Amino acid sequence: MNLVNHGFRLAARPVGLPKRSDWNYVEEPVREPGEGEFLVKNLYISLDPAMRGWMNEGRSYIAPVEIGAVMRAMAVGRVMASKNPSFTVGDHVTGMFGMQEYALSNGTSVNKVDAKLAPLPIYIGALGGAGLTAYFGLLEVGQAKAGETVVISGAAGAVGIVAGQIAKIKGCQAVGIAGGPEKCRYIKEELGFDAAIDYKSEDVTQALRQHCPKGIDVYFDNVGGDILDAALANLARYGRVVICGAISQYNNTSGIKGPSNYLSLLVNHGRMEGFVVFEYAARYQEAAREMAGWMMAGKLKSREDIVEGLETFPETLLRLFRGENIGKLMIKVSD
Amino acid sequence: MNLVNHGFRLAARPVGLPKRSDWNYVEEPVREPGEGEFLVKNLYISLDPAMRGWMNEGRSYIAPVEIGAVMRAMAVGRVMASKNPSFTVGDHVTGMFGMQEYALSNGTSVNKVDAKLAPLPIYIGALGGAGLTAYFGLLEVGQAKAGETVVISGAAGAVGIVAGQIAKIKGCQAVGIAGGPEKCRYIKEELGFDAAIDYKSEDVTQALRQHCPKGIDVYFDNVGGDILDAALANLARYGRVVICGAISQYNNTSGIKGPSNYLSLLVNHGRMEGFVVFEYAARYQEAAREMAGWMMAGKLKSREDIVEGLETFPETLLRLFRGENIGKLMIKVSD
Repeated sequence: MNLVNHGFRLAARPVGLPKRSDWNYVEEPVREPGEGEFLVKNLYISLDPAMRGWMNEGRSYIAPVEIGAVMRAMAVGRVMASKNPSFTVGDHVTGMFGMQEYALSNGTSVNKVDAKLAPLPIYIGALGGAGLTAYFGLLEVGQAKAGETVVISGAAGAVGIVAGQIAKIKGCQAVGIAGGPEKCRYIKEELGFDAAIDYKSEDVTQALRQHCPKGIDVYFDNVGGDILDAALANLARYGRVVICGAISQYNNTSGIKGPSNYLSLLVNHGRMEGFVVFEYAARYQEAAREMAGWMMAGKLKSREDIVEGLETFPETLLRLFRGENIGKLMIKVSD
Repeated sequence: MNLVNHGFRLAARPVGLPKRSDWNYVEEPVREPGEGEFLVKNLYISLDPAMRGWMNEGRSYIAPVEIGAVMRAMAVGRVMASKNPSFTVGDHVTGMFGMQEYALSNGTSVNKVDAKLAPLPIYIGALGGAGLTAYFGLLEVGQAKAGETVVISGAAGAVGIVAGQIAKIKGCQAVGIAGGPEKCRYIKEELGFDAAIDYKSEDVTQALRQHCPKGIDVYFDNVGGDILDAALANLARYGRVVICGAISQYNNTSGIKGPSNYLSLLVNHGRMEGFVVFEYAARYQEAAREMAGWMMAGKLKSREDIVEGLETFPETLLRLFRGENIGKLMIKVSD
């Protein structure tokens, strides 16, 4: 084969925002697959806020990326060579293939996807981790019910756009919080959110009071910080706060800001619950099937924000933390 | 009758710790009960951390005490005169009779209690609001199960002592956090907690790690602040945090400290849920009966911290915020 791989290996644990020198961009020969292995050429690689946490040392829901290891990343790719009877050359697959051109896999947590049914980027977007996160977070953790008011922060992000659309599909009132007029217009006009709040120009607490006169039944939080506090201040009785992420806090160098308004949980008998989508792995197929049905029925739209070139990774990742992406941010490695 | 009433009427909304001048101590004639009313002479009046919140303006689970109104307080008393057919002179009753010697009531949310079955103070302590709070908080909100590790802060307080004993009755491991060696000795030696952590002399995060090697399944929080963060740092997978109170925060003048470690909910699929005992009112009788059974079987001990004299109220209340009480703090008004 004599293939050459390029990829990012973790060089340092970042302090604050990650920078290019926190990784080494390496060129390495690709080794032949061993017995039971197969070789994947990555086509699209997912960029996720969670990556920032994976770079930290210490206990979490998943082991940190070790110094020197390939940066962890979800990707969709094509099987190029295989010594695993379950995977054939030409198969399209998703898995934790890392921030690199080629990956060897033994098939653990790898799923085949059908490039004829949907464009490949969707399998790491609305029908991938982001979509599944929205689905289980809203319906299982948040227990959103028809007629309830659902508020979503990071509403124009990969998870937010799906969460808001599922809320509408389920008969909820959907209010999105996003930064800037373009995102707000997009979620309201194109995705059908009932209201959009621009946190960069509005008083979020006041705007939530206006758009949620009966209080918030489900708050799906992707951002943490002041917006989480604003939502808590408007929680309805028995309201649920779904802790999906806290992108405003991941790069803090002075520690995480906890929600000062958490006693709203006490006075409203509210519940704040976190989750990681991996725990629902046994139900991914079921959920993806339902979501694919919604897509085919035109009820669920996907949107990807695709940047070309693996080598742009460190700078492209920062787009997430600057809130520059609309929809699912990913890198296109190859056609 | 020509009775004279003494009591505390709210004079100002406190900033920080309440002080005597935040109330007026007034002397007023007692009016005769009207049709459907009865007159109660308060014997013991309950002092609760929640009183501090009732003095604040603004939306909560209950309306604030208005300026000029008698300070809200739960009490146990004796019926002295009655024009209500359901209440007879000599009946002992509990209710929101206020921080005063005499109260007129129409019977709303008033319960008769039997002075022969248990000493009257118990009816506003372990068999009253504090005990019911512990019962529903631990078992309904916290869903504590046999074999689980339960951690309780404010463990030597009115709610904490009952929560820890119920945890033991239900077959849980009970770890209490309290301030000072006397409280720690008391909950461990006399109440049977498995371990006691003195937050004044120990590193709570480290001590929790030691006493809860498998993590905390249920954390019953009465205090908030740094201790809540220490518990979150030690949460087990699917751990529940019961937000019962936050006594460390009620008198803050610089705002409430939110739990910086709340993302532990995300990585552990934890749940943080608040409650107010009033919502379980329909089940008070059932719970009180079960707890009375435990008391008679010697499994549940009560403890009261009784201060004599209504007029000591402003200073006695501060004992709660200074952590000076063990068990249920109350004022004895009369024999």
